[in-house]
Amino acid sequence: MNITLAQAEKLISAAKEKAAAIDTKMNIAVVDGGANLVAFARMDGAWLGSLDISIKKAKTARFFDMNTGDLGQASQPGGPLFNIEHSNLGLITFPGGIPIKNAEGEVIGAIGVSGSSVENDHTVAEAGVSAL
Amino acid sequence: MNITLAQAEKLISAAKEKAAAIDTKMNIAVVDGGANLVAFARMDGAWLGSLDISIKKAKTARFFDMNTGDLGQASQPGGPLFNIEHSNLGLITFPGGIPIKNAEGEVIGAIGVSGSSVENDHTVAEAGVSAL
Amino acid sequence: MNITLAQAEKLISAAKEKAAAIDTKMNIAVVDGGANLVAFARMDGAWLGSLDISIKKAKTARFFDMNTGDLGQASQPGGPLFNIEHSNLGLITFPGGIPIKNAEGEVIGAIGVSGSSVENDHTVAEAGVSAL
Amino acid sequence: MNITLAQAEKLISAAKEKAAAIDTKMNIAVVDGGANLVAFARMDGAWLGSLDISIKKAKTARFFDMNTGDLGQASQPGGPLFNIEHSNLGLITFPGGIPIKNAEGEVIGAIGVSGSSVENDHTVAEAGVSAL
Repeated sequence: MNITLAQAEKLISAAKEKAAAIDTKMNIAVVDGGANLVAFARMDGAWLGSLDISIKKAKTARFFDMNTGDLGQASQPGGPLFNIEHSNLGLITFPGGIPIKNAEGEVIGAIGVSGSSVENDHTVAEAGVSAL
Repeated sequence: MNITLAQAEKLISAAKEKAAAIDTKMNIAVVDGGANLVAFARMDGAWLGSLDISIKKAKTARFFDMNTGDLGQASQPGGPLFNIEHSNLGLITFPGGIPIKNAEGEVIGAIGVSGSSVENDHTVAEAGVSAL
Repeated sequence: MNITLAQAEKLISAAKEKAAAIDTKMNIAVVDGGANLVAFARMDGAWLGSLDISIKKAKTARFFDMNTGDLGQASQPGGPLFNIEHSNLGLITFPGGIPIKNAEGEVIGAIGVSGSSVENDHTVAEAGVSAL
Repeated sequence: MNITLAQAEKLISAAKEKAAAIDTKMNIAVVDGGANLVAFARMDGAWLGSLDISIKKAKTARFFDMNTGDLGQASQPGGPLFNIEHSNLGLITFPGGIPIKNAEGEVIGAIGVSGSSVENDHTVAEAGVSAL
């Protein structure tokens, strides 16, 4: 089961609305169940470096079926997964990536948002997921 | 001068319509004047390998401000730019990438399309550019 | 719909048998519908360089849902897809990669074989696919 | 002296059994004395991001002929090998990778397991090594 393009565009549209509502400029990426990009949007004036980060957040959330920020708890110095970020051509393990599930609870993709504080990134990602 | 997200989404929407009209499933990427991704869409069932190709076509078209197919004429064995594809982390030099210009003729970005024959790819890219 | 590990191991087992029957030593890779590795085996004494080639063949076959050798017909100098191999972190476009379909004709993965002549590679890949 | 494919498959089979017994879904990789992949299996439903991690754990264990978790002790901030993970295209230095020795005590390869807690990963890797 994979997210469709129509679903991904709905998520991005909702995320953009939320980003504007809280006065931020975001990069928003959606990947499918295979962690491959389905749709992407960079809002005008958004940080350029957040382009890659948003895609890596989406991939990371699907790679481990959890919020990126949760993974980041475990990858700190002294933590059990220290430096896991070196795998998979680069992970991003701070908040802003969230898995997307269907009605049956199966992961069908993930969203990644980057462009502001990690709190704002997560808020916008959540707004996207909620639109489904 | 850079293409806006609103313009990029308009291009992708027009490209998707054309792709459906000629019964193809496309990956469609739009980059800005800095050759950085602005928007992307992979139609349901489109070739997975065309994801990267569509982005590389868009980048290539902006890197050299010409249609990707034109560059491919010069990169053949014996040609002046033989194997230029090795640069820039990989170019794609067959048709499907087209620069995007504003009313003043300045290049403000590029579109890249991949998912069918190179003729169809170019046709869909052109439909996108025409929407601006 | 993705290939299961049990199915992948059945394919590899059949491919190894065929490889031995024609006196070759092969690297055999199976990827799922997302082009991610499911199972792999390198027969004792098989070419080391064929490890990466077998994985790239499997990925290439899934990326474009066709036999790798068919793609190679179009990527020759002067062909419509010249130098497509530069995409997706490297494609392999000579024979040895074959998509795997389920009973409904949906692509659920792909097999890639490398270690001998491309004819032998293809023969062994076919033996694998036939086992399903 | 290198591990054979038959031995690697025996290890993977034992590791899969142990993984199932403790109710986990693992990626399991075995490399030879040259740190090159010999065999691999991703159990149905295992984390996609653990694919690369399991291979990197196996390589890391052979690169330094020690358990990956031991290396991770030294790569912490302030430690003598801080950020060694940047070498060799990416190391993984938390538990789950174990060198494989023959009867004479020579290292003939390594196993890497990823898909659960690092304790479970190590337990499954040990079950694999014990099968030899």
